[in-house]
Amino acid sequence: MDFSKLDGLVPAVVQDRTSGEVLMVGFMNDAAWRITLDTGYVTFFSRTRNTLWTKGETSGNRLAVRQIFTDCDDDTVLVKVDREGDGNVCHTGQRSCFYTEVPADGNRQTAEGNGQRATGSRQTAEGKDAR
Amino acid sequence: MDFSKLDGLVPAVVQDRTSGEVLMVGFMNDAAWRITLDTGYVTFFSRTRNTLWTKGETSGNRLAVRQIFTDCDDDTVLVKVDREGDGNVCHTGQRSCFYTEVPADGNRQTAEGNGQRATGSRQTAEGKDAR
Repeated sequence: MDFSKLDGLVPAVVQDRTSGEVLMVGFMNDAAWRITLDTGYVTFFSRTRNTLWTKGETSGNRLAVRQIFTDCDDDTVLVKVDREGDGNVCHTGQRSCFYTEVPADGNRQTAEGNGQRATGSRQTAEGKDAR
Repeated sequence: MDFSKLDGLVPAVVQDRTSGEVLMVGFMNDAAWRITLDTGYVTFFSRTRNTLWTKGETSGNRLAVRQIFTDCDDDTVLVKVDREGDGNVCHTGQRSCFYTEVPADGNRQTAEGNGQRATGSRQTAEGKDAR
């Protein structure tokens, strides 16, 4: 695994192995990678807290590793998992962290006039503004 | 979008909107993000070449944006796409860049004895060693 491109880290994409849903993306350093392989539970390195953390260690919503793939240049990981606990992976209580849709078409349609393209309106699954 | 955590970049996960397959992961800076939204084609910032590149600009295998999601802390993007051209997203000619499976169970089983856990044998989809 090539940890050199990102200062000792690689992005790790977590995907539900049954639904195919992308649940979250975290970062692993070499220690997190080894712990993930050894324990069978997804473990990340937190950039903001500067520490290792096994996803679900407090909530119980652990991510049980079923398959791991590395990409063609060996600097990114895809982990297919089964969700434990209540199955809500995001700390906000959502199933996935990717619950906020950016209206790509809408942005393109309004790009000419109002400068909203990159910071255009965002809606959560509940329709609330998440910014 | 919060580009501050990764020196001006965010990871962008590209997923086939029909099959759910995770095809590749790249990085976007603010310019790549805006171009992706404006053009409807996935554009990255290359860390190794230090330049913007629209995926498929030479191969024709462009990635047409259908839906975009940001994650709960606004520092990662999930792009659901339709594949153009021959549909092989990886520069190696594979459909997805994640064609190399790391035997997670095997690694755990052999972790005690031979130190293979983090760098254990890797197999491509064709069974060749990819290291």
